Amino acid sequence: MSILITGAGGYVGQELAASLLASTPASTTVTITDVVEPEIPEAAKEHASRLTCVKADLTSTEAVDELISASRPYETVYILHGIMSSGSEANFELGIRVNLDATRYILDRLRATMPGVKVVFTSSLAVYGLAPPGFVISEKNFPASPSTSYGSQKLIIETLLNDYSRRGFLDGRCMRLPTVTVRAGKPTQAASSFASDIIREPFHGRKAVLPVSKETEVWICSPYTIIKNLMHARTVPKEAFGESRSVNLPGLKVTVQQMLDSLLEVGGKERRDLVEEKYDAATDKIVQTWTPQFDTTRAFELGFAADISMEENIRRFASRFV
Amino acid sequence: MSILITGAGGYVGQELAASLLASTPASTTVTITDVVEPEIPEAAKEHASRLTCVKADLTSTEAVDELISASRPYETVYILHGIMSSGSEANFELGIRVNLDATRYILDRLRATMPGVKVVFTSSLAVYGLAPPGFVISEKNFPASPSTSYGSQKLIIETLLNDYSRRGFLDGRCMRLPTVTVRAGKPTQAASSFASDIIREPFHGRKAVLPVSKETEVWICSPYTIIKNLMHARTVPKEAFGESRSVNLPGLKVTVQQMLDSLLEVGGKERRDLVEEKYDAATDKIVQTWTPQFDTTRAFELGFAADISMEENIRRFASRFV
Repeated sequence: MSILITGAGGYVGQELAASLLASTPASTTVTITDVVEPEIPEAAKEHASRLTCVKADLTSTEAVDELISASRPYETVYILHGIMSSGSEANFELGIRVNLDATRYILDRLRATMPGVKVVFTSSLAVYGLAPPGFVISEKNFPASPSTSYGSQKLIIETLLNDYSRRGFLDGRCMRLPTVTVRAGKPTQAASSFASDIIREPFHGRKAVLPVSKETEVWICSPYTIIKNLMHARTVPKEAFGESRSVNLPGLKVTVQQMLDSLLEVGGKERRDLVEEKYDAATDKIVQTWTPQFDTTRAFELGFAADISMEENIRRFASRFV
Repeated sequence: MSILITGAGGYVGQELAASLLASTPASTTVTITDVVEPEIPEAAKEHASRLTCVKADLTSTEAVDELISASRPYETVYILHGIMSSGSEANFELGIRVNLDATRYILDRLRATMPGVKVVFTSSLAVYGLAPPGFVISEKNFPASPSTSYGSQKLIIETLLNDYSRRGFLDGRCMRLPTVTVRAGKPTQAASSFASDIIREPFHGRKAVLPVSKETEVWICSPYTIIKNLMHARTVPKEAFGESRSVNLPGLKVTVQQMLDSLLEVGGKERRDLVEEKYDAATDKIVQTWTPQFDTTRAFELGFAADISMEENIRRFASRFV
C-alpha cells in the first residue's frame, strides 16, 4: 500500500507523514512532495526506508504526471499543498494557479490513472463568510459564501471533488480545518499565523506580534487532533458521508485572551511578556470574516475526535518542540 | 452603449435580445452569439440594424478573444450559454468544457480587456441539492450543495464571479433561475424540458411526454418574468448586493397536476389529452433533487418582480406563439 501527501514540506504534512508511517504496516510506503524537497520528519527517521521525498512543482503538468501514474497506484492521496489565506489575497494569480488549477489537474490525473482512489483534501472553514453574531454554523444551516480568494478556491475544489465522488471518478473527503494551533516551525503566510506565533515564538525565547485585538474569538484545533482526524478521514467508509463529502472538523472556540492566559499558565510570565500587541488592519480584516463557532455533530457522527484543551495543546507543543 | 449576450440562440437569449433592443435608446447595440449563428428574434426585426449576430464556439479561446476585445467595450455582458442539466449529466466532459472552462475564460478575458464590466450570469437553483420536505430555501439558510454536474459547474462560476466582484475585477450578478416555463421553441436537453413541453406541444397540436408523476412539485417562472428580471439585473446598483452577488430569483411553486389543470382551463380538453404519462427514471432522478420552494425576500428587496399566475403564463404563451 502506498500513500501520497502533497504540500508535505509544511508542518501538517510532516506530522501526518510521520504518524502514517508509525501506524501502518511495514509494507506501507509514503511519498511526500513539495515545491522544495520535503525533509524526512524527525519522528519518521526510523521509518525512512518506507518514505520517498520528492521535489515537485505541482503547477507543472509534467511534474504531476510523473508523480501520479498508473504504474504506481496510491491507496490514498492527501492534498495538503496550497497558497495560504494572506498569500492568496495578496497574489491572486499565484493563489488560483496553485490552489485551483494545480489541484484540479491532480484530480483529473488521479481520475485518469487510478479511478476511484481515495482523496483527502484539506479544505478550510474559510469557505464560510461571517455568520451573524452568535450563530453556530453546521454543514446544513448556512451557505458557504467565502470572503477571501483562498476560501473561494477551497470551495471550488470541494465542489469538484464532491461531483467527482458522486459520479464515482474519485472517492473524495473534504476536511474543513479550523485554524491549526500551535504549529511548530516558522510563521506562515496565513492570516491565522499569529494564533501559533503567539505561543510558539515565546517558547523559543523570541518576540511574537499579535495583529488583532485580544477579544477576537477564533476557532482552533491542536495539531494533535488535526493529525488524528486526517488519519481517520482515510478510514471512514464512503457510504457514511451521505450526499456530501464535506465535513467541518471539530475545534475549540477561544478568545485570544484565553490563549494568552493559557500561555501564562503553562509558560510563565517571561514568555507571556514576549507577545507584543501591534494591530494590523489587513490581517484583522481577514480574521474578522471567520466565524468562531461551529456545530460539528456531523464530524462526531463520522467518528472524528473532539479537540483537547488549550493548556494540554500548549503542553504537548512544549514537550515536543522546546 | 453595447451589450453582449452569449447562448443567444436559445429561447431566453432571443427574448432578452428583443426586449433589450425594444427598451434601450437607438444608440444601444446588442451583439448576440451562439455556437450556431443566432437568428434575429422575430420581435426584434424592426431593430435589426442595432443587432449583430455572431457564430462563435466559446470553447475556442480565439473565438472569445475576437468577441471580447478592448476596442469594443460592452456595458453589460449576459452569460447565458451552457450545456443544460441532462446534457451535462450525460456528457461530463462536454459540460465542464462549456459550463466551466469556456465561462471562466470569458470572465478572465473580460477582466483583462474591460475591467469592472457588468456581468449578468444565469445560474440555476440547481446549485442546491434537495432540502428536507417542506423546507423553504433562502440565500442565507441553506448550503449550495449541488446534486448534479450542471449545478456544480454553475456554483463554481458563481464562486469565481463573486470573488472577482469582491476584488473589483468584474461587476457580477448571479441570477439563480427557476425552471423557465412555458418556453417556446423546441424541447431541450434540460431535465426540466417537460415542464414546458406539456404546455407548448399540445398548443401546437403535438403530443407531449410527462416523465414524472403528477404530484411532483416544481418551482417555475414564466419567460415574461424571467426577461423582466434579467433586464432588471443590469440596473441594480452593485452596492445593493452586499456580500454576495448571488440571488434566488422569484418563481411559483406548482404541482404538475396544477399545470395540467391550467392547460385544461386555458387550452381545453383536446389539448390536455395530448399529454401522455410515461415515467422516465433518469429524468425523475434529477428532478427529485430540486427543491420546489424558495424564500425570495432578497430578490424582492433588490427590486426583482414576482411571477405571474400559471393561467396568465399560458395565455401569454398562447397569444404570442400559437
